[in-house]
Amino acid sequence: MNGWDGERIAPDPVRVNGGDDTFSYKENSYYQRLAADAVKEKIVDAITRNLNVCELSSASNIIRLADLGCAVGSNTINAMQDVLEVIKNKCHSQCPSSKLPEFQVFFNDKTSNDFNTLFTSLPQQREYYSAGVPGSFHHRLFPQSSIHFAHCSYALHWLSKVPEELLDENSPAWNKGRIHYTNAAEEVVNAYASQFAKDMENFLNARAEEIVSGGMMVIIMPGIPYGMPYSHLTNGVMYDLMATIFMELANEQLITEAELDSFNLPIYSASSEEMVKLVDKNGHFSIKTVELTNPTSWLEGPIDIKAWTMHVRAAMEAMFSKHFRIEIIDEMFNRLIRRLFEFSDKVESGYKEKTQLFVILMRK
Amino acid sequence: MNGWDGERIAPDPVRVNGGDDTFSYKENSYYQRLAADAVKEKIVDAITRNLNVCELSSASNIIRLADLGCAVGSNTINAMQDVLEVIKNKCHSQCPSSKLPEFQVFFNDKTSNDFNTLFTSLPQQREYYSAGVPGSFHHRLFPQSSIHFAHCSYALHWLSKVPEELLDENSPAWNKGRIHYTNAAEEVVNAYASQFAKDMENFLNARAEEIVSGGMMVIIMPGIPYGMPYSHLTNGVMYDLMATIFMELANEQLITEAELDSFNLPIYSASSEEMVKLVDKNGHFSIKTVELTNPTSWLEGPIDIKAWTMHVRAAMEAMFSKHFRIEIIDEMFNRLIRRLFEFSDKVESGYKEKTQLFVILMRK
Repeated sequence: MNGWDGERIAPDPVRVNGGDDTFSYKENSYYQRLAADAVKEKIVDAITRNLNVCELSSASNIIRLADLGCAVGSNTINAMQDVLEVIKNKCHSQCPSSKLPEFQVFFNDKTSNDFNTLFTSLPQQREYYSAGVPGSFHHRLFPQSSIHFAHCSYALHWLSKVPEELLDENSPAWNKGRIHYTNAAEEVVNAYASQFAKDMENFLNARAEEIVSGGMMVIIMPGIPYGMPYSHLTNGVMYDLMATIFMELANEQLITEAELDSFNLPIYSASSEEMVKLVDKNGHFSIKTVELTNPTSWLEGPIDIKAWTMHVRAAMEAMFSKHFRIEIIDEMFNRLIRRLFEFSDKVESGYKEKTQLFVILMRK
Repeated sequence: MNGWDGERIAPDPVRVNGGDDTFSYKENSYYQRLAADAVKEKIVDAITRNLNVCELSSASNIIRLADLGCAVGSNTINAMQDVLEVIKNKCHSQCPSSKLPEFQVFFNDKTSNDFNTLFTSLPQQREYYSAGVPGSFHHRLFPQSSIHFAHCSYALHWLSKVPEELLDENSPAWNKGRIHYTNAAEEVVNAYASQFAKDMENFLNARAEEIVSGGMMVIIMPGIPYGMPYSHLTNGVMYDLMATIFMELANEQLITEAELDSFNLPIYSASSEEMVKLVDKNGHFSIKTVELTNPTSWLEGPIDIKAWTMHVRAAMEAMFSKHFRIEIIDEMFNRLIRRLFEFSDKVESGYKEKTQLFVILMRK
């Protein structure tokens, strides 16, 4: 009965902020939407070219879509609506004499996600049957061969857990004074890469069972050009500044050094080469597209550091609050905004990089 | 595109109390469980005799179950687990050489239901893939022919809305000074019956689309022997006492009379004869069982009026709080306990009646 059992290996629930208040993900996730929008046309194109919708719907006349790591708010709803429209259009053109299939959309995220807010955000008039699926996408979520199209946007960079070596004082991967692999020892970088590889193996194995032959999966996640140091990326600059601030707070005795040393962000950015290797190793999917795109091609003028920090907080606060008091988190984010202004040149140059990994896979 | 669109005709969300505190449904729903347990053996028997599990799972090797109006807490989880066990056993005995099917369980309730609490209550180790489905079961919830077994326990007695005539001062069904059809004019009783008939028509039409041929549906709901006045039932006694208390509160000018006159409980108990008529009219289901059972056969000694009132409050408070201030609701329930003690003879005798309607239908 392997694979049925939710989230056993994830002791640290990673989830975005629920509800709809100032710090909520619902109100602070338009950067993610704009970043995903930058590849919308590529998804339309991939479905139009590669998805045999008539064949996929021939057995039951039902097409089932899944958004994996959907979080809350309009991003997941709009993404699924967009996909549905393209599939509908393809049905009209590919098999015009057939009855249009019925659509069922599964919104998946960890059990701790705010599904109540997600459900009340669903449009009252919708052209699909909707369902929320609680559980980690590193495990099985759906019955065998029951999904025709899976979408996973800005979710796979969350590791299922912090690599254990990072917390072991006797390991060369002990990550003292840092909260991420940015500027860290090679052993730390390797520990993160190895955790990502394990997570992807579980993810791809589960999806291989669930997605029908000929089905499609779109993955959008933070990426990095092969060989580029993480510290060149905007997020790298930010994680380093966060660590510096936590170190200040330790020096001011507002937190202990041990608290800092035992905290690490379970976040990873993969290169195209790494992704290709992991998909090939799994063997159940063929790669239609893997490329790095610029997630901020829509951005005109300098980045709004305050709004960006709100986005980061909405997505990441839960992770900090498992470890630090709310006053510490408030203080860290306040100082972070000031520091990011000081380092705005580095932030800007990082934002010009192609740091969004865009992948389209077909289930063999 | 009829039927896709959630809850348009239900302006008044009917839902049980969420969360897990003193007044929550999660902590106050064991009466419903014990009442449903009283028919558990009958469900086991019906599945064993009538459900052709090998044929149902032959196409996809997936069996899909749905609990309609699941609310929160362990009742829905236990009920689905019980059904799953029986189906599994039947698979083992009916088609021992086939691979056991995979199971997907859909937990449905109105969008306002506390799905977050429900999802965190799911057992970590479970033998099924789970999904929450937000929306009114008076509409379509699932794709065509995708459900093999539907279960609806203590949910169909909630009407989709209060019959409109009850609020019209010029109608003979104006329900002045009452909150229910107990002891009300015939026109009021008829208005309720007619609303229930409309709701059942919508419910059965939707399920007829969704349940596969040969699939089963179990309905458990409050019932009443044909021709018995509602005032003979324990709930009838209670609704009458509630109305009396609201009248007192109006006399004490804590609420207005208009507030009382414009409030009615959208709750209905059907007779076996009525249910048979509605199912026959729909025409898509054959009736395997329809009977009245005693929901309190497990009860030894007198009913615990305080615990019972807590159950009523957990299930019904949301309905009151759409209309009355919390202080009024507190006061009403406090007075209700005292009054129920005064009328404990009537309460007890009502509890001895067969007032649970148990129905098993097969999709033709």
